[in-house]
Amino acid sequence: MSLDLAAIRAAHVRIRPHITRTPVLTNARLDAACGGRLFFKCENLQKMGAFKARGAANAVFSLADVEALRGVATHSSGNHAAALARAAKLRGIPAHIVMPSNSAKTKVRLVEAYGGKITFCEPTQAAREAACAAVLERTLATMVHPYEDERVMAGQGTAAVELMEDVPELDLVLCPVGGGGLLAGTAIAAKALRPSVRVVAAEPAAADDSARSFRAGQRLPVVAPKTIADGLRTSIGEPNFEITRRWVDDVVTVSEAGIIAAMRMIWDAVKIVVEPSAAVPYAAIMEGRVDVAHRRVGIILSGGNVDLDQLPWTAHPPVA
Amino acid sequence: MSLDLAAIRAAHVRIRPHITRTPVLTNARLDAACGGRLFFKCENLQKMGAFKARGAANAVFSLADVEALRGVATHSSGNHAAALARAAKLRGIPAHIVMPSNSAKTKVRLVEAYGGKITFCEPTQAAREAACAAVLERTLATMVHPYEDERVMAGQGTAAVELMEDVPELDLVLCPVGGGGLLAGTAIAAKALRPSVRVVAAEPAAADDSARSFRAGQRLPVVAPKTIADGLRTSIGEPNFEITRRWVDDVVTVSEAGIIAAMRMIWDAVKIVVEPSAAVPYAAIMEGRVDVAHRRVGIILSGGNVDLDQLPWTAHPPVA
Repeated sequence: MSLDLAAIRAAHVRIRPHITRTPVLTNARLDAACGGRLFFKCENLQKMGAFKARGAANAVFSLADVEALRGVATHSSGNHAAALARAAKLRGIPAHIVMPSNSAKTKVRLVEAYGGKITFCEPTQAAREAACAAVLERTLATMVHPYEDERVMAGQGTAAVELMEDVPELDLVLCPVGGGGLLAGTAIAAKALRPSVRVVAAEPAAADDSARSFRAGQRLPVVAPKTIADGLRTSIGEPNFEITRRWVDDVVTVSEAGIIAAMRMIWDAVKIVVEPSAAVPYAAIMEGRVDVAHRRVGIILSGGNVDLDQLPWTAHPPVA
Repeated sequence: MSLDLAAIRAAHVRIRPHITRTPVLTNARLDAACGGRLFFKCENLQKMGAFKARGAANAVFSLADVEALRGVATHSSGNHAAALARAAKLRGIPAHIVMPSNSAKTKVRLVEAYGGKITFCEPTQAAREAACAAVLERTLATMVHPYEDERVMAGQGTAAVELMEDVPELDLVLCPVGGGGLLAGTAIAAKALRPSVRVVAAEPAAADDSARSFRAGQRLPVVAPKTIADGLRTSIGEPNFEITRRWVDDVVTVSEAGIIAAMRMIWDAVKIVVEPSAAVPYAAIMEGRVDVAHRRVGIILSGGNVDLDQLPWTAHPPVA
């Protein structure tokens, strides 16, 4: 495992021309509600609307020219797919994307907008992997796994580096966990930069494989979990789990209603658009799963790609 | 008229501890769509969700102690009301607020949250003024007009100062106009800092008093205009109109459908929550009312206080 702060710093230098240094926002109303001081790292304001722009750019721009020519490939429920397509376009190489057939419309459109070549598959882990293997065999492209790839994890960790540059004295960092790419990079960067910081991961109770795995000491994947947090439906990856065991202090879970309430509260108070997955750490605060009173808390808001016609609090209004 | 760059700079020093230095955001997708480079000054991310925090803070913190003790008063459709209540609370003095009975629920709640003492009135300019006069007679408070007050205009101009510090080489600044407080401060600051910059105001065609007044060379107020842009229903003030004639290059108008489309586009692409009034300048770009091709364009996004249960594109969904 060569993923350390040096690798994350190298990624930062590599991707800086291709990403946004996102702002860190604070909000008096949300601070008053929880008794802590919250610092929102706004990766929803990142290129293509999610932190995934970082990891994908690092992977694509790490490739040797001869490798890069054959293109890159991945399977992803959405944000990583768009991010990889975007990075590949910036480098002028093809991106082959396997997407589950139930991917959010917004995310499919994003991949298309960046020129990604899409292959749809059934929405299971096995189907994704099979479809991706077929693509790799045909194209000889380089696989860029959405979260198990070290170059990807290093890129995702650059958000935490920026957060801690802007707010050096954090007591706690909260991060959502799905496959664990963001969590791995965040935990390694945060603990290296400030050994006293506590790192807590949050996930939907309806996709609680990381929490169960963390307590059991072994990976216990979930199959086809049903959660509104579409970015967190994936089970945690093997290297991601090992990093979580070593560097993460706790994994907490939140309800579906809590995710929707947290999402709405962030829109209403902070005035930014976040997707359900991004609201999961704040949901953990609202539901009392993590103690933030009198603490300085960094929260990675992972993305903002939502379908504005299908908001969870207006999609099914009462009929008069 | 003592409103000049020096007054705006003095306001900036005075209010800095009480406001947010809001970020300036860019967006590749929106740039590609218009052929210009857009720089969004995010006053929706300002304290209480609107630029009005600036002018109100400057007015309240400009008062001598003996004046301040009697409190402040105003009439306002919403954001100024909340801003004045907030500033008064920060200084520990009372704020008396006259609000039209059709004010947005979100905005009434904001005023209440900051401890403002509300008097409701009919939604006409005459009723507002009468109710406010009665409050002033009773309380001896200092009137802080939402846009004709020079201290307010100076405070609003500080957003443009920050924008032009962050992006010095702007060709064009776009600003919404209702009463004209933001426009007055913005135009004076922008022209003083960069004489070559073009300043263009945008308003709803359904509340086009500023555009008609600008062309006629005299104030032609509108009565009870019907526009979704609730912050821009007011007719331009007298001093604001004089400043507009002198410093503003053009006033353009946009359709109601254009405002909704622009609002949705900003949410979708930039991932921020803006209210209809704030979307009006971008609507002018979408509707081709202002030429931005190959130009560097600063856009003041005035606020983000919307009712998330009543979004214009989801409030009346088709019933299955």
